[in-house]
Amino acid sequence: MASTSSLTLSQALLARAVSHHATERRRDSLLSLVSIPAFSGLKSTTSTATRATIATNRRRLSTRQVRAAAVETLDATTDTSLVEKSINTIRFLAIDAVEKANSGHPGLPMGCAPMGHILYDEVMRYNPKNPYWFNRDRFVLSAGHGCMLQYALLHLAGYDSVKEEDLKSFRQWESKTPGHPENFETPGVEVTTGPLGQGIANAVGLALAEKHLAARYNKPDNEIVDHYTYVILGDGCQMEGISNEACSLAAHWGLGKLIAFYDDNHISIDGDTEIAFTEDVDKRFEGLGWHVIWVKNGNTGYDEIRAAIKEAKAVKDRPTLIKVTTTIGYGSPNKSNSYSVHGSALGAKEVDATRQNLGWPYEPFHVPDDVKQHWSRHIPAGATFEAEWNAKFAEYEKKYSEEAAELKSITNGVLPAGWEKALPTYTPESPADATRNLSQQNLNALAKVLPGLLGGSADLASSNMTLLKMFGDFQKDTPEERNVRFGVREHGMGAICNGIALHSPGLIPYCATFFVFTDYMRAAIRISALSEAGVIYVMTHDSIGLGEDGPTHQPIEHLASFRAMPNILMLRPADGNETAGAYKVAVLNRKRPSILALSRQKLPQLPGTSIEGVEKGGYIISDNSSSNKPDVILIGTGSELEIAAKAAEELRKEGKAVRVVSFISWELFDEQSDAYKESVLPAAVEARVSIEAGSTFGWEKIVGDKGKAIGIDRFGASAPAGKIYKEFGITAEAVIAAAKEVS
Amino acid sequence: MASTSSLTLSQALLARAVSHHATERRRDSLLSLVSIPAFSGLKSTTSTATRATIATNRRRLSTRQVRAAAVETLDATTDTSLVEKSINTIRFLAIDAVEKANSGHPGLPMGCAPMGHILYDEVMRYNPKNPYWFNRDRFVLSAGHGCMLQYALLHLAGYDSVKEEDLKSFRQWESKTPGHPENFETPGVEVTTGPLGQGIANAVGLALAEKHLAARYNKPDNEIVDHYTYVILGDGCQMEGISNEACSLAAHWGLGKLIAFYDDNHISIDGDTEIAFTEDVDKRFEGLGWHVIWVKNGNTGYDEIRAAIKEAKAVKDRPTLIKVTTTIGYGSPNKSNSYSVHGSALGAKEVDATRQNLGWPYEPFHVPDDVKQHWSRHIPAGATFEAEWNAKFAEYEKKYSEEAAELKSITNGVLPAGWEKALPTYTPESPADATRNLSQQNLNALAKVLPGLLGGSADLASSNMTLLKMFGDFQKDTPEERNVRFGVREHGMGAICNGIALHSPGLIPYCATFFVFTDYMRAAIRISALSEAGVIYVMTHDSIGLGEDGPTHQPIEHLASFRAMPNILMLRPADGNETAGAYKVAVLNRKRPSILALSRQKLPQLPGTSIEGVEKGGYIISDNSSSNKPDVILIGTGSELEIAAKAAEELRKEGKAVRVVSFISWELFDEQSDAYKESVLPAAVEARVSIEAGSTFGWEKIVGDKGKAIGIDRFGASAPAGKIYKEFGITAEAVIAAAKEVS
Repeated sequence: MASTSSLTLSQALLARAVSHHATERRRDSLLSLVSIPAFSGLKSTTSTATRATIATNRRRLSTRQVRAAAVETLDATTDTSLVEKSINTIRFLAIDAVEKANSGHPGLPMGCAPMGHILYDEVMRYNPKNPYWFNRDRFVLSAGHGCMLQYALLHLAGYDSVKEEDLKSFRQWESKTPGHPENFETPGVEVTTGPLGQGIANAVGLALAEKHLAARYNKPDNEIVDHYTYVILGDGCQMEGISNEACSLAAHWGLGKLIAFYDDNHISIDGDTEIAFTEDVDKRFEGLGWHVIWVKNGNTGYDEIRAAIKEAKAVKDRPTLIKVTTTIGYGSPNKSNSYSVHGSALGAKEVDATRQNLGWPYEPFHVPDDVKQHWSRHIPAGATFEAEWNAKFAEYEKKYSEEAAELKSITNGVLPAGWEKALPTYTPESPADATRNLSQQNLNALAKVLPGLLGGSADLASSNMTLLKMFGDFQKDTPEERNVRFGVREHGMGAICNGIALHSPGLIPYCATFFVFTDYMRAAIRISALSEAGVIYVMTHDSIGLGEDGPTHQPIEHLASFRAMPNILMLRPADGNETAGAYKVAVLNRKRPSILALSRQKLPQLPGTSIEGVEKGGYIISDNSSSNKPDVILIGTGSELEIAAKAAEELRKEGKAVRVVSFISWELFDEQSDAYKESVLPAAVEARVSIEAGSTFGWEKIVGDKGKAIGIDRFGASAPAGKIYKEFGITAEAVIAAAKEVS
Repeated sequence: MASTSSLTLSQALLARAVSHHATERRRDSLLSLVSIPAFSGLKSTTSTATRATIATNRRRLSTRQVRAAAVETLDATTDTSLVEKSINTIRFLAIDAVEKANSGHPGLPMGCAPMGHILYDEVMRYNPKNPYWFNRDRFVLSAGHGCMLQYALLHLAGYDSVKEEDLKSFRQWESKTPGHPENFETPGVEVTTGPLGQGIANAVGLALAEKHLAARYNKPDNEIVDHYTYVILGDGCQMEGISNEACSLAAHWGLGKLIAFYDDNHISIDGDTEIAFTEDVDKRFEGLGWHVIWVKNGNTGYDEIRAAIKEAKAVKDRPTLIKVTTTIGYGSPNKSNSYSVHGSALGAKEVDATRQNLGWPYEPFHVPDDVKQHWSRHIPAGATFEAEWNAKFAEYEKKYSEEAAELKSITNGVLPAGWEKALPTYTPESPADATRNLSQQNLNALAKVLPGLLGGSADLASSNMTLLKMFGDFQKDTPEERNVRFGVREHGMGAICNGIALHSPGLIPYCATFFVFTDYMRAAIRISALSEAGVIYVMTHDSIGLGEDGPTHQPIEHLASFRAMPNILMLRPADGNETAGAYKVAVLNRKRPSILALSRQKLPQLPGTSIEGVEKGGYIISDNSSSNKPDVILIGTGSELEIAAKAAEELRKEGKAVRVVSFISWELFDEQSDAYKESVLPAAVEARVSIEAGSTFGWEKIVGDKGKAIGIDRFGASAPAGKIYKEFGITAEAVIAAAKEVS
């Protein structure tokens, strides 16, 4: 573990700055130049020794390098009293908002205000007036309960999403400042956090996206993709397994531009972390392959924080964890360093005591003029960052028009015209195949036309059939490739994909495991749905049809469990055309994730299936009735649609008028017009039988009081698939018997 | 990382043996004594140096100590060629079973056969004829796909559950040898594994149970609880976040009798672990606080393995990870050390080549006579172990009758007579309260009468209200206490509780978090249901009623998602009596887990609720109709039952005959007689309205085609709870309007 003395480090970094690559210096310098007026005349706290070093270094540098050196010392020339005032502004905005709402978490913002200030005021590059500017540095508050920290920072930085009135309506109905950070509510918030550990994993995804796009699009003369990803995580995030999964991958991938601040405050909701969290986090992260720095005084050691960030930036082959030891609720004389300040308002009395203690004479929600003035430079600075980048992109476009067009489609999310023509089509004569294999045909077809498509599997690529054959592996030294190897880390995988999806609207991440193991990643999948991240979940081995692996591997309740989840598409295609349709829907739904449940076993190409049908969620694949009034409607999904079709054949031989409906997506069907729904499932036809190798839970809605749902309401079994189907009664015979019973 | 030379270590351990405590020596000695005849005359591989040390040590020891010293050298006096033959028997039983099934995972059993052999033949204490003998050492194959290793070992050891015909029906319908280890199918298998990472976390639970019971019941003169927990985990388990969570806790709790073998074979399904898993596992585990040993030659370094186990046993204050470097598929000349041997049959040709390579002339499934003879001693040894323990328990009972009675109830699972009288009861006059608080009253009442009740929360004890007030914290140095602090590790918590529940039938673990975070632990909850582990899940903050924390924290689809899961009880009590009823049901259901969804907000004590009603799943709490034909039936659960009751009052004022039904558990209601169901929900009454602050998915089954389900089919929102209820239309007014519409 590297314990750093700020002075020594600053000096070391000054020396190191000489070798920083040009782009970085260029970017560093801008904020410095813009900010110089605000600081002129302010008292310098730079030691004489440091100044001498600066002077020496300056003499050795070119003009451009002088500007870089200038920024390296920016922090040291800042008036510490103004920094402290700004930090206290952040603290009191958080205190006041929580107090007014009488709900929220003041402890983290009070403890993390220093690192928050330094990040947003001194380090990060962003444009407050365009929170979606592509090349912005990303910030993730993984400890999302401390969201008032981020709202206060966005407010000071000049984001329109968090005005004073928004701070005053913290945690109220329809406010822009909900109880946890939500990207879909508050521009400037990158991802949705709160459920612990998700944010750090999202940040790994954001950093992966940057490294990947930089590798694909940067040119020696134009590094058009170039930003950092910063994250603050707490003890809670550290305890969650997902963070270990994602952080293991971050180091494996060498995500050097990922810099994580670990708010080491020794307090969690139940009290001191001593009661449940005594591991050596630094050592664990070193084991994972991270560079680790310890800032011992996170409360007032501003230079220590600054030096740590610079050291982190200098380490380019690994992500950095900056453990910042802080006092939760810093400034509150009676509640700091205790769990009581974690998740409740301080109370009027303690707010007063804290104002006294920190010397804060202002009214609630007041931002002192000099602090306001100080932060006001971020609006012009941000505009300049973006304008410069736009100019750079214009140059890039001139020289590298093809790459520029691709990158543009990734940054603006406009799908290339005619992309859907790449989707394969099938006829009933096409060979029978498992939908997992058909899925791979689709993925490989789409990868050629969708520059933003990338993804992989949780160590099941050869079972999930997710490899893109024309690409290699995304790895530390081959980040331009598009096959991502997640290892056996489903939860981390889902959250990383959320980060990728929310990095740029044109990135379309997919990820894969066995359908049953959605259980491992459900919290991440829910965040996809909530935060409008259009991740494609390629979930194979979708039923007892996987056979011998047995009940631990056989999903039963999973289809129902996702049909009940808001804003997600649960798709279970039956053959090639339906698999292509599922991909069409999944790609088009950029603000809604899709889950494709795919078979391990071979399935025939069925007559009547179509991409167009899939887009309607439920549709007729065959019908021998002459009106809209068949004797019975048989409804199937995925691998059981074949069984429904077989049963229909038999029943028709007996003279019945039978309709077969594929019900691939309940959500899409729900969105159709009443007239369409009536044309598929006429109210007058109550004789309905559904068949699906999963829980019957929910099927009453489709088959109605008089209908019958055939399914599996027990756990699976270990045996060859055909045997289980037979023993469990998932057969054409069962459908025929049920059809006769209900019609 | 400790790299061990077997010889040096053996010597060191011989010296250390002198200080071993008496009980351990006693237990170690038995297998040695029983086994001596089998080994007499066999060639000794003990070095002269070692022998000299033994002799010296023996002279210093008492009679009892001499026997202990004898066992310390047991391994060294074993004929290595017989050991190798036994190990190859294990390998070929696995190869042959997978080959016959043409399905399964031969790679792990072939690589792990040496450590498996040493564990089951030389180290572990068990009774093959009574797999449930309380004081047995526990073994968990966390890398469950390698189950043929365990089946082969159980077969050799003489367990009736795995006869030759069972090996021959590996992975077939209704066999005792399913595709992954299932405790409910195969006596001798402790827990159900396969989903990676679960097993190591279960093992932490097993070791916790041992440490806890030992602390509560052991006496200076009678250590009646005393066994080890062994586990084999692979690279896949290591990558899963759940294992990091559980292993962090294992070290925090100082579970010195947990010994984990990490099968370090560098291969996972997608190929070399280099592609996704390059962290330093040893360092991570040292960071977590484990003792780490590296066995460099896990293929043939038998003495290294033995020495490592002894070293692990000598480290009593921490769990030990023995990293055993092995070759996956060891012995297969063309497939070993590749992913191709991980999960498929070798194929006839390679099986032949492997037979050739390992010098195995036998027919498939053959166990050579000398190997059979060698293993045959475990049946008498096991009987002796148990008999000795029974004698010890008889002594214990004489001296400590009260403790003995308690321990007995924990070992046999018979609940103390009249325990249910401890459940609190409430009247409509009892103060309104949140069901999470009422839950705490129940937990505290039950802890007094149920000696096996223990548990805690994932860092939300003060929110989940799960503290047992008369007990302290289960911690490293206070393991006799019953409040378990899991930290923010929901997934690990669930799996640890599965281990506790499956340790002894009378242990009743409960665990808690916010209901929405069941998403983090769903894979463990599913294993509770599948493996018949009666864990009680105390899930508070069960709806939008939690208010300001917002949609990341508000469950919507969760009730539906668990109602669709087999073999689990989803209970949502409405008030005090229903909470007591839910606990009664949860405690009685020892082979089915229960989830209690509990409110954050205060709820009134409703007239008509009862424990008896809860036991039926759905029941009438009020009805002003004179027959079984009310005008409308209003159905509610949990916090919305109050709303249904209020709506009924209004409707009755308007002259309607209204029945109010509490529908606390769909599963229990489903199990009632048709007559009972008809008495609650008569088929003739189609006017039904349900209200529940969650997804309406599935409610069509209850309200029928003509009824109406009021619920929430979108994500929640951040605002005060009352405001969200109103805006989302979860109100009495909405129920009244719907009732009028349908009736």
